Amino acid sequence: MVIAGELVAGGGTEIRAFDPNAGTELEPAYRYGDDSHVEQACAAAAAAFGEYRATTSERRAAFLERIAENIEALRDALVARASAETGLPAARLTGEVGRTTGQLRLFAEVLREGSWNGARIDPALPDRAPLPRPDIRQRAVPLGPVAVFGASNFPLAFSVAGGDTASALAAGCPVVVKAHDAHPGTSELVGRAVSDAVADCGLPAGTFSMLFGSGPGLGTALVTDPRIKAVGFTGSRFAGMALVAAAAGRQEPIPVYAEMSSINPVFLLDGALATRAAELGAAFVASLTMGSGQFCTNPGLVIAVDGPDLDTFVAAAKDAVGQAQATPMLTPNIAANYAKGVVALDADADLVVRGAPGDGRTTCRAALFSTDATTFRGSEALQAEVFGASSVVVRCADTAEMASVISGLEGQLTATLHVDDSDHDQAAELMPLLELKVGRILFNGWPTGVEVCHAMVHGGPSPATSDSRTTSVGGRAIERFLRPVCYQNVPKALLPSAIADGNPDGLWRRIDGQLTQD
Amino acid sequence: MVIAGELVAGGGTEIRAFDPNAGTELEPAYRYGDDSHVEQACAAAAAAFGEYRATTSERRAAFLERIAENIEALRDALVARASAETGLPAARLTGEVGRTTGQLRLFAEVLREGSWNGARIDPALPDRAPLPRPDIRQRAVPLGPVAVFGASNFPLAFSVAGGDTASALAAGCPVVVKAHDAHPGTSELVGRAVSDAVADCGLPAGTFSMLFGSGPGLGTALVTDPRIKAVGFTGSRFAGMALVAAAAGRQEPIPVYAEMSSINPVFLLDGALATRAAELGAAFVASLTMGSGQFCTNPGLVIAVDGPDLDTFVAAAKDAVGQAQATPMLTPNIAANYAKGVVALDADADLVVRGAPGDGRTTCRAALFSTDATTFRGSEALQAEVFGASSVVVRCADTAEMASVISGLEGQLTATLHVDDSDHDQAAELMPLLELKVGRILFNGWPTGVEVCHAMVHGGPSPATSDSRTTSVGGRAIERFLRPVCYQNVPKALLPSAIADGNPDGLWRRIDGQLTQD
Repeated sequence: MVIAGELVAGGGTEIRAFDPNAGTELEPAYRYGDDSHVEQACAAAAAAFGEYRATTSERRAAFLERIAENIEALRDALVARASAETGLPAARLTGEVGRTTGQLRLFAEVLREGSWNGARIDPALPDRAPLPRPDIRQRAVPLGPVAVFGASNFPLAFSVAGGDTASALAAGCPVVVKAHDAHPGTSELVGRAVSDAVADCGLPAGTFSMLFGSGPGLGTALVTDPRIKAVGFTGSRFAGMALVAAAAGRQEPIPVYAEMSSINPVFLLDGALATRAAELGAAFVASLTMGSGQFCTNPGLVIAVDGPDLDTFVAAAKDAVGQAQATPMLTPNIAANYAKGVVALDADADLVVRGAPGDGRTTCRAALFSTDATTFRGSEALQAEVFGASSVVVRCADTAEMASVISGLEGQLTATLHVDDSDHDQAAELMPLLELKVGRILFNGWPTGVEVCHAMVHGGPSPATSDSRTTSVGGRAIERFLRPVCYQNVPKALLPSAIADGNPDGLWRRIDGQLTQD
Repeated sequence: MVIAGELVAGGGTEIRAFDPNAGTELEPAYRYGDDSHVEQACAAAAAAFGEYRATTSERRAAFLERIAENIEALRDALVARASAETGLPAARLTGEVGRTTGQLRLFAEVLREGSWNGARIDPALPDRAPLPRPDIRQRAVPLGPVAVFGASNFPLAFSVAGGDTASALAAGCPVVVKAHDAHPGTSELVGRAVSDAVADCGLPAGTFSMLFGSGPGLGTALVTDPRIKAVGFTGSRFAGMALVAAAAGRQEPIPVYAEMSSINPVFLLDGALATRAAELGAAFVASLTMGSGQFCTNPGLVIAVDGPDLDTFVAAAKDAVGQAQATPMLTPNIAANYAKGVVALDADADLVVRGAPGDGRTTCRAALFSTDATTFRGSEALQAEVFGASSVVVRCADTAEMASVISGLEGQLTATLHVDDSDHDQAAELMPLLELKVGRILFNGWPTGVEVCHAMVHGGPSPATSDSRTTSVGGRAIERFLRPVCYQNVPKALLPSAIADGNPDGLWRRIDGQLTQD
């Protein structure tokens, strides 16, 4: 573990990563921390907060860039260790290094652009009747130390120095990470890289800590520590909702940004099916089985009007699943949960095809099911996320039944529509329904693959996330860790520079409600 | 009650407003609604949502302005009825009519300005290596029907057509109000004015409903109705936290914006005390006793370094409290709670002075207490809000002890500093501590009086509110009822106008992260 710049070994449960390709455990062993480590990390974070949040945007941007450089310097070692710990191919992990450093650099850009300050000024109106208006200004301040829970399926991009850590550090919040058990070696490497960057940049040591521990034990202790002011989490619905409940039960409740559960419906409209059903079936399976289906945006649901074109799609998908290589899942636990999930789907839907069985302890056997809309609407199991390469095709009688399936859906990260020009009217009918259910609507593509950019939303209504008002990917993620403060008649000498006269930081600001750089 | 344009009489408990000046109940009687009325109102709101949210900014702005006009047309009747129901002076209520209509017009302005759309575009990069970037766009959509709970102390500005209703309607959310029992006649008048505006503007009837009922009964039914997607509330900590718990226990948890409890510390720095202690004492009591102290921003705490100057302040305040007229409180219930709260303060602090006893059943006897920092830090009672004209002066040994009192404070709506130029260094030390505790910092004024403008923050960390990331007053309140949705590779013909090519709505938009009106 890393606590405020010190390397610390825990004394609790011993954990080792599992190599899904080799089927063996990996050295070295890591050990869980306990409440005393939570206490140390939170005390250090609270002590660091005042100095860290007072740093300039430029200084925090340079810090994020240094983290990116330190990670890049470890690229080969990181990819090798992460590949051993997750079974993910080196090419995918090399891409994930780039995504992780890209995220850090995106937030450096967001910091330098400066709108994150939310600067607003309503100048005094001393002559207003019946009462003069005071000088009123507003800017954003960081919430305080943030607890981040690393995800299993993105050992770099959603883990120790992933999106949650990058956005919280950008906002001016110290971070205490609970690293995921599935990749402790990768976590150690990245944790050192971040901790080194803290030292390189002369920042207070408590700006960053990383702990190992169980979710219900150390994780709960972290979320309920009064010095922690917000939580970022990516994982299961069960674990996420447990953290939400723990945070809500505090003396001072705090926001929890939990990204949890989504089955990402894909709609095949008639025109698209008529012209390219077979092609869509093959492409669908490529998205479904990529990374053994271990993506929160995995297409777990396909919805279309029944008929020969949909039969063609299903036949093509069936062929593709049959030909797909069996690949290992991240951990034995995930593989066991996937197998259970497939059994639950099998109980309520008709099996179309299973993938090759493979021979490893954690092999993911892809699974495709089919059902009708009435059965789907009546089944809780068919709406539950099964983490891995399984999907259910829902055959609808007509567009109206597609709409009614949408109305019965829980919240989702994404919805995908495959359309031809002839489908635009139908798509225009479905989009308003989908806007209420999802964080991202995409056309003629596949939901796996989340672009890190300014306009991305990786979020959505419950249970996709615990807070639909935000995104965990993209520039706006910084807003999750900020809140507005108003300054009324503050003497000029005491105003923060973001809202000072003369705009010394050169920000876009809202003066009397109008955006200006003056 | 008003349900989707129809006037409906409840069949439950009979309530009558109480005239605090006359000490009598007012006709007519109103009756509580029940679950069937919640069902009707929520069904109508859900049915209206699709059409209402699809209206243009201009159309919703015109609707808000029409509500304002309808309220202005009732001004005399409203002021008369509200004055009878609350005991508040006509001048104050006339001002509150202006504030209420001003709020509605502010949100009309926010709608027309258009930045509420949160429009972002990251254009496609088809030639990017190793992977092309898709076209990614983002805009805000409204959450859905909103439940609003009217407050007792602002029968107009925080009630049926108050800030929560105005901001939710602006965002495109239908509203179901639970009106406060304390002013049913005022609520009826305003409810009709809003409902008439719905009809005047040709909007779907379910856009607005207003119900009477108990908090634990009808209020809980409203918050737990699955069609309600957010809650606005102003009232007590107990009632607010009950709504937070009810919302968190839903199958789909929803945001609750509860503005609850604050004692609004006022800091008197040495230089200010040295030059104008007596003047500050008198001005403090004017703020304390205004409206019988029934403001969420009432100055319930005064913190200063002990000494002769503070003695002068306390002596002046004591005089002023002795001279202040006894005024009635809003309801017998509020008066009884105030009396209990004063007893609790008296148990832990030293009484400086009580105000005149008055002769009404609901008269507010102002109360001023004094204590030292150690006693204050050790007392839960002295940190609890006592709704009414009571305050506690905390005598500190030095600036360091003032800082430690701040660190022990719960979240607050406001903090006030009285300073002279010589106090700037000390103020600069305290401000970073206060920024973590409050929503608004003000200098050389009094916290009562909340300007409705673009830069205002009426909010703050728990227990001041249940969500410190927002404000319930000012232009940014609209954001509470919106969430972002991302559009990836959406055909041009299907893009919402806010994010369409050519910027047909003329919005400020963020293109590749940079603000532009192009």
